Amino acid sequence: MAVKMVGLRGLMATRHYCNNINNIERQVRRVVALLRDQPLHQTVTVNGWVKGMRRHKERTFLDIDDGSCYKKLQMVLKSDQRPATLGYHSAVSATGILQPSTHPSQEVELLVQQIQVVDVGMQGDYPFKARQTHPPDYTRRFPHLRPRTNSFASLLRVRSQMKAAIQHYFEREGFINVDTPILTTNDCEGGGEVFMVQHLMAQQQSKGSSEGKAQNSYFKQPAYLTVSGQLHLEAVANGLSKVYNFSPAFRSENSQTRRHLAEFWMVEAEEAFLVGREGMEALLGRLEGLVKEVMTEVLEVTSEDVQAHWQRSQGTEEAVRRALDKPFSRVSYAEALDILSGAPDLPPVSPGQDLAREHELYLTNSLGHRPVLLTDWPLTIKPFYMSACEDDSSLALAVDLLVPGVGEVAGGGLREHHLPTLQGRLPPPQHHHNNNSDNNNSLQWYLDLRALGGGVPTGGFGVGVERLLQFLLGIHNIKDTLPFPRWAHHCPC
Amino acid sequence: MAVKMVGLRGLMATRHYCNNINNIERQVRRVVALLRDQPLHQTVTVNGWVKGMRRHKERTFLDIDDGSCYKKLQMVLKSDQRPATLGYHSAVSATGILQPSTHPSQEVELLVQQIQVVDVGMQGDYPFKARQTHPPDYTRRFPHLRPRTNSFASLLRVRSQMKAAIQHYFEREGFINVDTPILTTNDCEGGGEVFMVQHLMAQQQSKGSSEGKAQNSYFKQPAYLTVSGQLHLEAVANGLSKVYNFSPAFRSENSQTRRHLAEFWMVEAEEAFLVGREGMEALLGRLEGLVKEVMTEVLEVTSEDVQAHWQRSQGTEEAVRRALDKPFSRVSYAEALDILSGAPDLPPVSPGQDLAREHELYLTNSLGHRPVLLTDWPLTIKPFYMSACEDDSSLALAVDLLVPGVGEVAGGGLREHHLPTLQGRLPPPQHHHNNNSDNNNSLQWYLDLRALGGGVPTGGFGVGVERLLQFLLGIHNIKDTLPFPRWAHHCPC
Repeated sequence: MAVKMVGLRGLMATRHYCNNINNIERQVRRVVALLRDQPLHQTVTVNGWVKGMRRHKERTFLDIDDGSCYKKLQMVLKSDQRPATLGYHSAVSATGILQPSTHPSQEVELLVQQIQVVDVGMQGDYPFKARQTHPPDYTRRFPHLRPRTNSFASLLRVRSQMKAAIQHYFEREGFINVDTPILTTNDCEGGGEVFMVQHLMAQQQSKGSSEGKAQNSYFKQPAYLTVSGQLHLEAVANGLSKVYNFSPAFRSENSQTRRHLAEFWMVEAEEAFLVGREGMEALLGRLEGLVKEVMTEVLEVTSEDVQAHWQRSQGTEEAVRRALDKPFSRVSYAEALDILSGAPDLPPVSPGQDLAREHELYLTNSLGHRPVLLTDWPLTIKPFYMSACEDDSSLALAVDLLVPGVGEVAGGGLREHHLPTLQGRLPPPQHHHNNNSDNNNSLQWYLDLRALGGGVPTGGFGVGVERLLQFLLGIHNIKDTLPFPRWAHHCPC
Repeated sequence: MAVKMVGLRGLMATRHYCNNINNIERQVRRVVALLRDQPLHQTVTVNGWVKGMRRHKERTFLDIDDGSCYKKLQMVLKSDQRPATLGYHSAVSATGILQPSTHPSQEVELLVQQIQVVDVGMQGDYPFKARQTHPPDYTRRFPHLRPRTNSFASLLRVRSQMKAAIQHYFEREGFINVDTPILTTNDCEGGGEVFMVQHLMAQQQSKGSSEGKAQNSYFKQPAYLTVSGQLHLEAVANGLSKVYNFSPAFRSENSQTRRHLAEFWMVEAEEAFLVGREGMEALLGRLEGLVKEVMTEVLEVTSEDVQAHWQRSQGTEEAVRRALDKPFSRVSYAEALDILSGAPDLPPVSPGQDLAREHELYLTNSLGHRPVLLTDWPLTIKPFYMSACEDDSSLALAVDLLVPGVGEVAGGGLREHHLPTLQGRLPPPQHHHNNNSDNNNSLQWYLDLRALGGGVPTGGFGVGVERLLQFLLGIHNIKDTLPFPRWAHHCPC
């Protein structure tokens, strides 16, 4: 279903722009700072939107939101000061004195001396009603407007803090941030669900067919949107030891489920000098540490936003607390199959077969409703670059991190470092025919890392930011974890 | 010229992997921490690469680099301890005792008790010679290997710190990080130099032609790679007031210059409640503050890496110091034309014409060799969304930030907020024919921001990360500012 954009009725409505609302001369303060620092009896200016209005005979109370935090600032003005155009979602600029509030639900309020309506608020076909919480399936149809709703603004603040916490973690741990490329000539996973990128010849647009003139020649070879920056991170880890990226990634799956996006954000880390079981233990500790420290920071900094989500998503808080308070469960693939064999109503898993999401959820539930680090996978169902266990060459030193309610949020492992073994496991020729007769030519650079010396064994993992957000906040549909989701047939704005 | 990957001769060389080099049991420490904290007389393990080796009869001295900082750690071992396979760029894991150094060039050194060669170092067609600094034009041909060189590792550390400093700035200032989409159906600038994205049908690959089977149908309408997230940021600023993104951006220019990339990183900020001259002043202050604070943090945290670059790029340090110590120059477009009219040997600029890079450089040089905030541009040469000055409707409330040696590093301004004016300035129909008869349908959502109420005037800017790095470090070719550069005909790995 295409997202219907709102029409343009009511366009010509008079607007009230004022020219003296900027931050230069006056003391413009943000709501979050006023509520936190409480600079009583100071004259301050606040710019924001009206999210609540109670009109009494003498006085009018406004709840003002400037997007800086979950709480609103109460403003009090004499009712004869109230501008005629003031309404729900009006944008205002108000100057007044911060004073203690007599009402028990807030500590301070702004006694307004001057108020200006910068924009009059909801007009025309504005899709959201005043004082009403709309279901996510509805607000999602208006990606350009939903950041104005309380719940989605909350989500965006939590998302921002989660990204910051991820960066803080890697900074503390001495990792170097590396931008792996979006445009690439190889498909890391070999899965085939890639977007192809072509050069739009602008000079030909006047002669264009219904699809425009696109050419493949920009890079002289087919180019795709990255599905993972891992192979590139391995190259850089061979100079900087500890590296990570934080990047959009793409899958062109023709999927309409609530679990898939065509464009999502992933953080990937790669660390040199990780070998064997001992290296794998270090990697598992790193992954668990990252997830716990990031969630802890987000809970500390944006607790009110998180709490607001938890009020709607029963049970999530418990699952998150369990994840933070105890070690993650650790099981091997073989152990997992044992557990699953006792599961009623689940499709059986044959040895060597991948798990479905329902299996993942059963495992997290039966292992204490906590995250599960699932290791020792059959080598045959893992990508070509995974290292085998030394004690059983049919198993991969690989891990999936499963979390309750969501399933897989991260995957990783140690990389195969022995060049002949790696060559033997290279993926089949890619979707295109290179000019070069060697179909795996596009991975020659990756083989060079092992062939030319100075390269060391590495290991790493990738964490899907949106799925981690789903787990932390109990968000049902992954499309509600980022501002402008893209999925099959949906690229509305 | 296509990048030639190194061949696979010497593949089968014996490798020495050891299984006890992980970080679990032993006290693995990074070089940066040892040199900073100097935990004398402690037994520590260091993993890293040999960047220097002096073999004396009794003792051998190694300079060890683990990528964590510019300085190396000196290791001292008895020469009879020296592994036979030890060579330049060998990867080693060494355990020893940190002790004061008798040599004046370092304060501490590691007295080695045990050393293992994890990888023997340069082999086969390894393109970099020991103890030799290769020119950037050469190392650029080996993007997968150049992170192992001292100078490029330095660049990557500075780049990482610059990105961190940008995030720190916006966190301090209360901005919310927002991920604007990479896949988009509209072309923000209307410039036409966009990449088109198509769905590669994996199931058809076996029948594939030489270019594979690509289809336009994934999004039901043509989709492009973003050139800017600004329009999307404006939507979110209308709920969160202060927002920024940090994102890859794309241009499919058929350019081979040292100033252009097909894929680059940009940070864009957008702030609500900015109006008129006063709002523009706030925006200019914001842009100048960001650039200065970011450069200051980078100089503090990675000073040795920056100094190493400055030793090769004469004059850069002076320009950077001037940028930090004094206010940026501010001139209007009209004033700039006056200055340029006195320039010998420069092509004349007619009023209403854009400036070329040579004009930009002349301006920064003639205005004190400092960055220049160039404002009051002719509205006609700025994009459709720029706001006009109130006192002269032929001028835009727009700014370009020019820096010595590089030219434009940032651009921004206030946005046109009056809906009928905005509609009148919409760009011409895009490259494709929509199913919809309204060619500007893809920007309907953007018009909604003004049409439906609760929207306020906003302003913002975008800063090119690579160009700011060029200025800070004096890097001649922009392709040397990021690990895997892409430009016309170049997507080597």
